[in-house]
Amino acid sequence: MTIDLNSDLGEGFGRWSLGDDDTMLGLVTSANIACGFHAGDPAGILRTVRGARDRGVAIGAHVSYRDLAGFGRRAMDVDSADLVAEVIYQIGALQGLARAAGSAVTYVKPHGALYNTIAHDERQARDVIRAIRESDPSLVLMGLAGSTVLRLADEAGLRTVAEAFADRAYTPAGALVSRREPGSVLHDAEEVARRMVRLVTEGTVTAIDGSVVPMSAESICVHGDSPGAVEMATRVRAALAGAGVGLRPCAPPPDSARAGG
Amino acid sequence: MTIDLNSDLGEGFGRWSLGDDDTMLGLVTSANIACGFHAGDPAGILRTVRGARDRGVAIGAHVSYRDLAGFGRRAMDVDSADLVAEVIYQIGALQGLARAAGSAVTYVKPHGALYNTIAHDERQARDVIRAIRESDPSLVLMGLAGSTVLRLADEAGLRTVAEAFADRAYTPAGALVSRREPGSVLHDAEEVARRMVRLVTEGTVTAIDGSVVPMSAESICVHGDSPGAVEMATRVRAALAGAGVGLRPCAPPPDSARAGG
Amino acid sequence: MTIDLNSDLGEGFGRWSLGDDDTMLGLVTSANIACGFHAGDPAGILRTVRGARDRGVAIGAHVSYRDLAGFGRRAMDVDSADLVAEVIYQIGALQGLARAAGSAVTYVKPHGALYNTIAHDERQARDVIRAIRESDPSLVLMGLAGSTVLRLADEAGLRTVAEAFADRAYTPAGALVSRREPGSVLHDAEEVARRMVRLVTEGTVTAIDGSVVPMSAESICVHGDSPGAVEMATRVRAALAGAGVGLRPCAPPPDSARAGG
Amino acid sequence: MTIDLNSDLGEGFGRWSLGDDDTMLGLVTSANIACGFHAGDPAGILRTVRGARDRGVAIGAHVSYRDLAGFGRRAMDVDSADLVAEVIYQIGALQGLARAAGSAVTYVKPHGALYNTIAHDERQARDVIRAIRESDPSLVLMGLAGSTVLRLADEAGLRTVAEAFADRAYTPAGALVSRREPGSVLHDAEEVARRMVRLVTEGTVTAIDGSVVPMSAESICVHGDSPGAVEMATRVRAALAGAGVGLRPCAPPPDSARAGG
Repeated sequence: MTIDLNSDLGEGFGRWSLGDDDTMLGLVTSANIACGFHAGDPAGILRTVRGARDRGVAIGAHVSYRDLAGFGRRAMDVDSADLVAEVIYQIGALQGLARAAGSAVTYVKPHGALYNTIAHDERQARDVIRAIRESDPSLVLMGLAGSTVLRLADEAGLRTVAEAFADRAYTPAGALVSRREPGSVLHDAEEVARRMVRLVTEGTVTAIDGSVVPMSAESICVHGDSPGAVEMATRVRAALAGAGVGLRPCAPPPDSARAGG
Repeated sequence: MTIDLNSDLGEGFGRWSLGDDDTMLGLVTSANIACGFHAGDPAGILRTVRGARDRGVAIGAHVSYRDLAGFGRRAMDVDSADLVAEVIYQIGALQGLARAAGSAVTYVKPHGALYNTIAHDERQARDVIRAIRESDPSLVLMGLAGSTVLRLADEAGLRTVAEAFADRAYTPAGALVSRREPGSVLHDAEEVARRMVRLVTEGTVTAIDGSVVPMSAESICVHGDSPGAVEMATRVRAALAGAGVGLRPCAPPPDSARAGG
Repeated sequence: MTIDLNSDLGEGFGRWSLGDDDTMLGLVTSANIACGFHAGDPAGILRTVRGARDRGVAIGAHVSYRDLAGFGRRAMDVDSADLVAEVIYQIGALQGLARAAGSAVTYVKPHGALYNTIAHDERQARDVIRAIRESDPSLVLMGLAGSTVLRLADEAGLRTVAEAFADRAYTPAGALVSRREPGSVLHDAEEVARRMVRLVTEGTVTAIDGSVVPMSAESICVHGDSPGAVEMATRVRAALAGAGVGLRPCAPPPDSARAGG
Repeated sequence: MTIDLNSDLGEGFGRWSLGDDDTMLGLVTSANIACGFHAGDPAGILRTVRGARDRGVAIGAHVSYRDLAGFGRRAMDVDSADLVAEVIYQIGALQGLARAAGSAVTYVKPHGALYNTIAHDERQARDVIRAIRESDPSLVLMGLAGSTVLRLADEAGLRTVAEAFADRAYTPAGALVSRREPGSVLHDAEEVARRMVRLVTEGTVTAIDGSVVPMSAESICVHGDSPGAVEMATRVRAALAGAGVGLRPCAPPPDSARAGG
């Protein structure tokens, strides 16, 4: 039994740093690396890409709306010509940096407001899918389990990976509880770790109302942007190991001999 | 006898356009395409890339300092970690868009202040060379004839292309007359066309003092950012054809069957 | 009988220009001047501000979402803390440049997607109103006739100016016909000029279905971003003069002695 | 005997924070607040402005080259038209936010590479001086003791304030030891505190070679971008108080009744 652990990395910009990339690269198997539109300056991206390469961590393009000031978290009504080209541009830029580091981008995970929008908006979902296919149809698309974009990507022939969020509560229908609701974000590292073990070993998660719902995910998203988040990721990883769950990237990097998870 | 004609294209940004890319793509054999740092939004770059592909025009990465407000024309003291990564990032982004269009980037021509700085500054010149080699060592570097960066790139094993400027005056030593000097920019399309024919057929150019100096160039840079510039480029092309000089890209695009110059 | 003519100016950015500010400043009485978030670099803004001052044209802050790549035309879900502060920032920046030119900002007209959003979205409308009141409660707010933001601004004690669009078709209900509909934009300069004379002299406009609807506007928006637009603005101005309608800014600049409209 | 303590604040941007503004506002008497060109988004600037107002801390415009990616630390060859207008723009934007908070900007301190450049470059120094005079000639200019810009500003009739750096070593000639030299930055909080007391009470500083040099400063710059920096600022403040030195802004905010230092 294996699972992928992914986290958002490379999210500094120039003078500003965010999160502890170095520690997180020792915990996860897949790194969603900012591509410069919500975060990530080229030199910082390159450092993160090299760290991922050294540890056999898969490199994913964390593509975003163009919105540094809003960290890509603000819904934007971007037309298709722009959105398709912006996603290709970001993937290409990260591919260039990964190639320079002797590695390669193996998957794409949209970020922030774009992630949320394409979970339900067909037009923007199709734009992102088209951008990935035109960039490289062998790239894997990581997204929200049950989302519109994953369904459309499956239909379009892309390989997809559904992810679950370690620290988020779910509704009885298996959807994320909105961040605006009380209890939407979980803070108890032990509880989170137990939940993720059950998710992987039993294929279920306990919803916010206490009911047990089936859930299928090939990757678990953990955060690393605060000391508490790093601690939680550490607990999740340890608990999975303790339960005999192996960790491996869902879209392995090219030189898998180097990969150690 | 053949020569390459190159021009700076894709230099709009969002709502703003600059130059007549469509006309220029019918005149030149190599397109220096903006990569987003001094100009060029992804959708506009993609349009230009597709136009180049359709006409067999070679696609070059017109990499720049990060300076939209200054159009990349302001000297900037960028450190090496940043400069190397920024150049890789830009090349990668353009490669992604070119690949999506079924073509490829075949050369790199630095833009504006970066172009001028690496003509003499060894540190930044080495940074750009390193970025190209780490991106793809088969990329050709286009630059100023006699410049530091071309010499260092030759030593580093990159293929280089020296260019001459159609509308610029030269000193008796074969250097460009500074734009601050009177007579540095030529405006007579017929005179410019005659000069370029002589450059290609005789390997000489008449300097600003009337002396004839030897000059070797594999590419001629023509501008397209005004109606007068387009007219001059048209005259240069026609004069070269009239003198029996063939036009072909110095770094041909992948599918050379489509190339018609 | 008098009316104000307003136009969007100062919309270049660095190397890129847009429209013919100089000509338009000779035609209008109010200049909606970009503040750097959708367009407008400080030196260009300052040039436009000086031109407006010299001709007695009123200076308005054309505030926008922060979106240079999209020219402020893309709806963005900006939270209130950001939107309020961004509008204050833009007004302040333009006030600084106007003061340096010996003039002053007298009104605010939101731009593009922000303009459209606050025509119906109460939350963002209140944010803009709050920003104006905190900047300077004597600033006039110009907006769409009948819009939510004008109603709320009236209630909040701001002076408001409703504008009509010279080249746009209206529904029988007095709303703008969507740009996605055929016939939404008028191209016949003579017809547009006649419509605007009737608007001012009779308080009516002919809707897209031929019905005549009452319309009250204190300002008319004309465009200047193409030769055809300048021609249309010229015709509108001439027709109004021919009908004995005086032109004067709805929010006059400080030194009205210089104003000549 | 009194002195001003100043620090660079408001240097976050969107999702990214930098330093502990809240603590530093309790330690200093003058806040150099980022204006959006090297750091500072409007909402973050407004928070810092309000904090300064609440504590009677003077608000200074920390104007910079336009270089978010480089945090304003990279020398840029900006022409005069741009530099003058950019400085006016930034001052105006901060004035707008300060006014909205019921306070006012009372001084200007250039940031980073601009600060260093105008310490010796006459052209850019004159541009900054012109921008301040055109914005508001009652604004005070804070800069490096003995610098070209302070001399030229004095000649131009601006009030100037020379500052010393708490944690920097000085040459026997009273200049800053370059950051590239060993020993240029001091790390011992107690030593720094003693040095600053002697600077204020005796008008001298011990140079890097052990010699005692005269130095006159009306303000001391302390940093707050790390826990160690905050600790050092705390020690400097305590040592000054212990030596009977009063703290007061060199360019007091408008409502001095609120000021408590």
